Amino acid sequence: MSTTVEEVKQQKALGWAATDHSGTLSPFNFSRRENGDEDVTLKILYCGVCHSDLHVLKNEWGFTSYPVVPGHEIVGVATKVGKNVTKFKVGDRVGVGVLVGSCKTCECCQQDLENYCPQIIFTFNSYNPDGTKNYGGYSDMIVVDQRYVLSFPDKLPLDAGAPLLCAGITVYSSMKYYGMTETGKHLGVAGLGGLGHVAVKIAKAFGLKVTVISSSPQKESEAINRLGADSFLVSSDPAKMKSGIGSMDYIIDTVSAAHPLLPLLSLLKVNGKLVTVGLPNKPLELPVLPLNFGRKLVGGSDVGGMKETQEMLDFCAKHNIAADIELIRINEINTAMERLAKSDVRYRFVIDVANSLSQ
Amino acid sequence: MSTTVEEVKQQKALGWAATDHSGTLSPFNFSRRENGDEDVTLKILYCGVCHSDLHVLKNEWGFTSYPVVPGHEIVGVATKVGKNVTKFKVGDRVGVGVLVGSCKTCECCQQDLENYCPQIIFTFNSYNPDGTKNYGGYSDMIVVDQRYVLSFPDKLPLDAGAPLLCAGITVYSSMKYYGMTETGKHLGVAGLGGLGHVAVKIAKAFGLKVTVISSSPQKESEAINRLGADSFLVSSDPAKMKSGIGSMDYIIDTVSAAHPLLPLLSLLKVNGKLVTVGLPNKPLELPVLPLNFGRKLVGGSDVGGMKETQEMLDFCAKHNIAADIELIRINEINTAMERLAKSDVRYRFVIDVANSLSQ
Repeated sequence: MSTTVEEVKQQKALGWAATDHSGTLSPFNFSRRENGDEDVTLKILYCGVCHSDLHVLKNEWGFTSYPVVPGHEIVGVATKVGKNVTKFKVGDRVGVGVLVGSCKTCECCQQDLENYCPQIIFTFNSYNPDGTKNYGGYSDMIVVDQRYVLSFPDKLPLDAGAPLLCAGITVYSSMKYYGMTETGKHLGVAGLGGLGHVAVKIAKAFGLKVTVISSSPQKESEAINRLGADSFLVSSDPAKMKSGIGSMDYIIDTVSAAHPLLPLLSLLKVNGKLVTVGLPNKPLELPVLPLNFGRKLVGGSDVGGMKETQEMLDFCAKHNIAADIELIRINEINTAMERLAKSDVRYRFVIDVANSLSQ
Repeated sequence: MSTTVEEVKQQKALGWAATDHSGTLSPFNFSRRENGDEDVTLKILYCGVCHSDLHVLKNEWGFTSYPVVPGHEIVGVATKVGKNVTKFKVGDRVGVGVLVGSCKTCECCQQDLENYCPQIIFTFNSYNPDGTKNYGGYSDMIVVDQRYVLSFPDKLPLDAGAPLLCAGITVYSSMKYYGMTETGKHLGVAGLGGLGHVAVKIAKAFGLKVTVISSSPQKESEAINRLGADSFLVSSDPAKMKSGIGSMDYIIDTVSAAHPLLPLLSLLKVNGKLVTVGLPNKPLELPVLPLNFGRKLVGGSDVGGMKETQEMLDFCAKHNIAADIELIRINEINTAMERLAKSDVRYRFVIDVANSLSQ
């Protein structure tokens, strides 16, 4: 018989939760499990605000289990470590990303691809095998199996580094898997939001030529002068888009709303690759003739395994890459969500958890 | 000033052409260029009937220039060779596929990917740089630059081997490019028509486990007992399709009509690849979440370059692979097209040109 929630020792936690599909967040008292032998307990310092949080808050993917405490770009400090924990000690800077569990035995887990494990346990809006529910990082503390805890490099800022744990690994892993890291090749980054702006930075660190493709002409100056992109295409400008036809080796498509693929596919050279990392909740229209006549591909990719996530953090530390963020207090989160829905953020909200949320 | 059609010496030819979008074919007298220094003139013996012929005849892709003589699966014997022709001599068994020209200088041409050259000249429904028009293989003879002529292996049957020049290379090239040839891996072949049935044979020669996915339950026995597939899924049977979820490494999707991708993507394992080689004239619906959460890709592919096409012919000769065909006379072509439109063919029509078409 499985252990019930009532029978195990608990740690008290405070978070902000939504209780219905309005998605409005408010303070929420709940419990975490006591720190087990394999566990690390984190005092949460910062948590990034990902577009997925918003999708789940409003049940836009159809599988939200309320109440839900979002947040999977978590940076903190280890306050407890279990007796079998070898990788971390109390006081370490640590991070937690999109997942907090997997089966550990399947082919994916054995290949360090825990994020594709069929029994993946997401950081929030998920259940553990014992039936207990998981709550995310819009909260003061969290307890996580050491396998799913990252060492957060000293060189990375705790606040601006937090979004790397989802946005950063999503673009990094897609570029590595699809072979989009060859110096001198030309990458298009479609959409300049949380993922897109990190993609520009990581791509430049790989030595790529980067063109931002955006519907917002006003982002051109920032894209080039601040983020380091080489050029900029306004997606709504047919003349500009035409000038880019057949010029790109790869595109990372970070757009999270439904959008036409044909204009992007046209920008690719023969053998070009378009990787979608946004998560639109409607199918996209895929024109087959341009795909076949140019031997192009459309690939999906979703965060990375724990080993690759650590590699990405170390890569970003080495290359001084972090997100450009707007730091907010927890009581500003509902306004932030409204702005995020309108893509009105430069480029990621991060919640200053430790300084604005307390018991 | 370019040479006009009237100024150059011509060879008389007889073919069957359509003159409007009804697509009805009838006898058509026209001219081919005289054999040039780089050219090979073929007496056409057999020509396969590809679904593309039908698309073009009825102007379903919107770029048909009537009159049109279709046919790009051409097998014949060399009757003239130019003075610079080194690869062929009169009397050789030769083949011509989907293309008869390209720029020869671009990156694609230099990499033996003439089929992706932006200046590709298709075998029919195309124009040469001098303004002359190209007519395809539903005709008694053709003149082709030696670069685009294949040596047709002695071991291959002339009639049943003809479809390899489009159907064969299309599936072979897609499997090679996308790395879908690893012995023991599991390939799904969606659609059991001209391309699909050759895909089964080539895949078995690579040592793959092959499952045919078809809407026609009556094809099961043939797929397994005659073509050598390992198993069969009826795409309209939810229980059967469910049993195949997550079981395949790759899928070759040969379906030429618009169709849902989600059921096929569901059959793939993590990192699975679906390659579309059919050419539906409407966009397909691409669901992004299953693509991302399984790191799957949808890739396009279109025939192959000349070097790879020769490699494919030699591979098929070595493994005794040819198409299963219905041999028809040229005056049966309109009825054959009606049957092809209904997928009523086992599995490729081939026209017995030499024995049914004469001046």
